[in-house]
Amino acid sequence: MAETFQLDPRLSATSVALGPLALCEARLQDDARWPWIVLIPRSPNAREIEDLHPFNRPRLMDEIVLAGEAVHAVGEALGLAVEKLNVGALGNITPQLHVHVVGRRVGDPAWPGPVWGVGEAEPLTQAQLHAAVSAAKKALGL
Amino acid sequence: MAETFQLDPRLSATSVALGPLALCEARLQDDARWPWIVLIPRSPNAREIEDLHPFNRPRLMDEIVLAGEAVHAVGEALGLAVEKLNVGALGNITPQLHVHVVGRRVGDPAWPGPVWGVGEAEPLTQAQLHAAVSAAKKALGL
Repeated sequence: MAETFQLDPRLSATSVALGPLALCEARLQDDARWPWIVLIPRSPNAREIEDLHPFNRPRLMDEIVLAGEAVHAVGEALGLAVEKLNVGALGNITPQLHVHVVGRRVGDPAWPGPVWGVGEAEPLTQAQLHAAVSAAKKALGL
Repeated sequence: MAETFQLDPRLSATSVALGPLALCEARLQDDARWPWIVLIPRSPNAREIEDLHPFNRPRLMDEIVLAGEAVHAVGEALGLAVEKLNVGALGNITPQLHVHVVGRRVGDPAWPGPVWGVGEAEPLTQAQLHAAVSAAKKALGL
């Protein structure tokens, strides 16, 4: 087991770095279907929330709320106004602890079901990526 | 909008009361396919985590971790040993803020996808319900 934090390549392959928050790496999911941020705590070997040190757990909650604001901003930038946030920590496929914060809208491609495992990701265009990353970074203070 | 907390009947219809935690009502999902606890913060009109008062957000995180321990205990009681926790706050169908804490195992009826919206709930037998509620309450200190 690694003693230092290393991002799982399955997470880096599907998302784009936004930058470091106090606890987590924040990344934009590369999927034009939903405004979607993934938070990965820089805690080596963490798989479950309980694996975080107790003083890092409220930090994770704060960063989930902040990421929710950023997902709203990404939704505005992409013309996909967010009506509901979905927050999920699953890790069935990629065990490294990570939290999804996804912006949902009535009639989106998985509504009202969950987004995970639905269809294939639709990569953002360069223009969408630029707009989404800019909006997310501004909202995250990065 | 109600000024006092009232549990959404869609949540009470599918689950059984375990009791009050400091912030949340804890309920056992009545579904024999997975050990599954639902936490509902007693905050009137909350739909998103950000709607919770900032001092209640770390309480929610603490209760999610506690519910995870209880889900492991329920899994033991039902013979469904938990290998991974899934935590999700969705609310696409029932808007009242609620958090699912679900015990997953390789090969379970939705593995490795999410559980929400998969098939039909399989109600617990009276014996399963008794064992699961007892185990959950003990782990939750109720």
